[in-house]
Amino acid sequence: MSSTISPLAPTDVPDMPVIPGVRLATAAAGIRYKGRTDVLLAIMDKGTTVAGVFTQSKCPSAPVEWCRAKLSRGKSPKAGSARALVVNSGNANAFTGRTGRQSTALTASIAARAVGCPPAEVYLASTGVIGEPLDASKFNGVLGDLAAQAAPEAWMDAARAIMTTDTFPKVATASVKLGKAKVTINGIAKGAGMIAPDMATMLSFVFTDAPIAAGALQSLLKAGVEDTFNAVTIDGDTSTSDTLLAFATGAAAAHGAPKISRAGDPRLKAFVKAFQAVLADLAEQVARDGEGARKLVEIVVEGAVSKASARKIAMSIANSPLVKTAIAGEDANWGRVVMAVGKAGEPADRDKLSISFNGIRVAKRGAREVSYDEAEVSNAMKQKKIEIKVSLGLGKGRDRVLTCDLTKEYVAINGDYRS
Amino acid sequence: MSSTISPLAPTDVPDMPVIPGVRLATAAAGIRYKGRTDVLLAIMDKGTTVAGVFTQSKCPSAPVEWCRAKLSRGKSPKAGSARALVVNSGNANAFTGRTGRQSTALTASIAARAVGCPPAEVYLASTGVIGEPLDASKFNGVLGDLAAQAAPEAWMDAARAIMTTDTFPKVATASVKLGKAKVTINGIAKGAGMIAPDMATMLSFVFTDAPIAAGALQSLLKAGVEDTFNAVTIDGDTSTSDTLLAFATGAAAAHGAPKISRAGDPRLKAFVKAFQAVLADLAEQVARDGEGARKLVEIVVEGAVSKASARKIAMSIANSPLVKTAIAGEDANWGRVVMAVGKAGEPADRDKLSISFNGIRVAKRGAREVSYDEAEVSNAMKQKKIEIKVSLGLGKGRDRVLTCDLTKEYVAINGDYRS
Repeated sequence: MSSTISPLAPTDVPDMPVIPGVRLATAAAGIRYKGRTDVLLAIMDKGTTVAGVFTQSKCPSAPVEWCRAKLSRGKSPKAGSARALVVNSGNANAFTGRTGRQSTALTASIAARAVGCPPAEVYLASTGVIGEPLDASKFNGVLGDLAAQAAPEAWMDAARAIMTTDTFPKVATASVKLGKAKVTINGIAKGAGMIAPDMATMLSFVFTDAPIAAGALQSLLKAGVEDTFNAVTIDGDTSTSDTLLAFATGAAAAHGAPKISRAGDPRLKAFVKAFQAVLADLAEQVARDGEGARKLVEIVVEGAVSKASARKIAMSIANSPLVKTAIAGEDANWGRVVMAVGKAGEPADRDKLSISFNGIRVAKRGAREVSYDEAEVSNAMKQKKIEIKVSLGLGKGRDRVLTCDLTKEYVAINGDYRS
Repeated sequence: MSSTISPLAPTDVPDMPVIPGVRLATAAAGIRYKGRTDVLLAIMDKGTTVAGVFTQSKCPSAPVEWCRAKLSRGKSPKAGSARALVVNSGNANAFTGRTGRQSTALTASIAARAVGCPPAEVYLASTGVIGEPLDASKFNGVLGDLAAQAAPEAWMDAARAIMTTDTFPKVATASVKLGKAKVTINGIAKGAGMIAPDMATMLSFVFTDAPIAAGALQSLLKAGVEDTFNAVTIDGDTSTSDTLLAFATGAAAAHGAPKISRAGDPRLKAFVKAFQAVLADLAEQVARDGEGARKLVEIVVEGAVSKASARKIAMSIANSPLVKTAIAGEDANWGRVVMAVGKAGEPADRDKLSISFNGIRVAKRGAREVSYDEAEVSNAMKQKKIEIKVSLGLGKGRDRVLTCDLTKEYVAINGDYRS
């Protein structure tokens, strides 16, 4: 496991304010790691709504299945309400069969007892080793203690407890007016960390005191991930455990915030913007902590036939090992970008294609830029952040995704730990 | 450029027999490389038929567009006939705009003059640097000399002239009865080689003296690539130049081989098998020469709902950087295999999934194999060839793809050359 902080880590870490209605506590349950916290309990006040989006994997982990089932309770009285979140790092409880389902049920019932709510209002996420049974009995004493200690300020501790091989804790916050009340949004995330023998997993949890109905929160979340978490890729590999949950305690209603029942409510405009900014901030931090990453890479595709087409092309570039190794080598290798555009299968006309690296155009209308200056481009490629812009010249479709370079350290992190 | 021969190179290189009706010659035209051959001219007798399959890239190279146009001449008298093949290494003539098209036309006209045929019967392929104009005038003297020197035995020279960063020349051959005559199939290929600043490109050319009509040859080729070249992946990146051409001189008709006009002709059965074996042999050699490869990896997926579904899942595993780095680290990381199955988007039931590495089952019906012996598995992972078998338990769909591991050398080959 790497202990060096990513050179792309943000230098400005915000002070995380409290969110009325949310208390947090962490502990070292000894699930796998020694000498660090590995379990987070978040307790939310009564009336908290919840929304979630999850991995598209056809082989999701037991906690993902648990959360999905609780979220889809339809019109039952407890549908969309949440009182607790338990996250453990060290063991993903994935590919553990029936044992895994028993383990989630046991964890939820321990947490429910500790918090004083039904198990159906407990949400779960796990990250870490796959295929190892998770011994949920380890939570037995721990969660009760955590419930007693939980405090509104423990945001950095919370962000630290959910890390695997992340090199820095990921937090983001925003405050905004909703009606006449100030509401706050806090988010934490863990990114493309890796522990043997596991895969990269993205977990993120966002909390607000805004009073937003569960259905509206779900719509906001679904719309919010599209250009944030869903627009980030490290290696094109999708975890069985990816989980993003949002909780709205509604505490701001006491200060005059209007109760929101529809995502399209015009009073929500500033909130939506701030909510998306928090998601975007966390997603970018995930890319900045990509395994072995030395450069943050932003791919902008414009002039595509549609936004969806631009996304596919941008993802094809972002996931190309040949593009990513070229960037690691500080090589403005536009030939590989053409290759990645071509293999995306989307409409593209070679003779209309232009490509630039960090604002310097290297190819124009299907051929090398006449004024191409190797030294100037090489210099630009030394930057920590690289923007690759591809103009297709076909339509108005535009999109942007974030990724990082592919370095020998990535191979070392993911291949060396048993050698 | 790496000069060490891949540890996976075949130890048994066949003696390549002559193919009546085919003559070959190579030269150093000085397109990019120094001190080695970089141009191949193959001359075929009158009456030779041709078929081809090409990259699916939306931004194909100029030679790919040239070949496609010549092959699709429909019912014109020269449709499906070929007299010459010119292949150059060092410059891919890709992303070169109008200049690229002029360059292919000039090359074809020079070759046509040298061989004595119409330019429309000249086929072209290029591999190497992208975006650099290819100065076809360099072929001017060269191709005339080559036409004069061309000889039936120069197969190994031909395989060498088309290499880029391939670490060994790739040849395969088979002989088989067609009617009462013996017919021969020879193939050469270049694989996942890399030259700065270019991408991996696959070129392959197969020749036979069997008398097979162009339409039938095209059907054979299309069916033949499905489980051979299309079932190989090094890094999921698709070149703009991938080209596979087959030529049938028909010379064996003089010894009694029947003229074949339909791919389904029952007399062709043994030939089809041998033809596929040559394609499979060449495709496997491409995987064995994957950049930085230390292990040949065969992914077998069975129990899928269909062959197409099995292919998608096998490709998802074969292209996963996390699976490939695990194999480089000699780690039987079945958790990552589950991840890759899950992200393929094809029907899969976690609780029915079984996985084995080199015949040792590590996971059974969605959980770790009870008798799992870490030492035994670790030992198996030290082999040069790794077979990952995934049993989905859903249906009868089965497929197999070949790939290689992802090593630090891959990153070095593709990222380091400018540092």
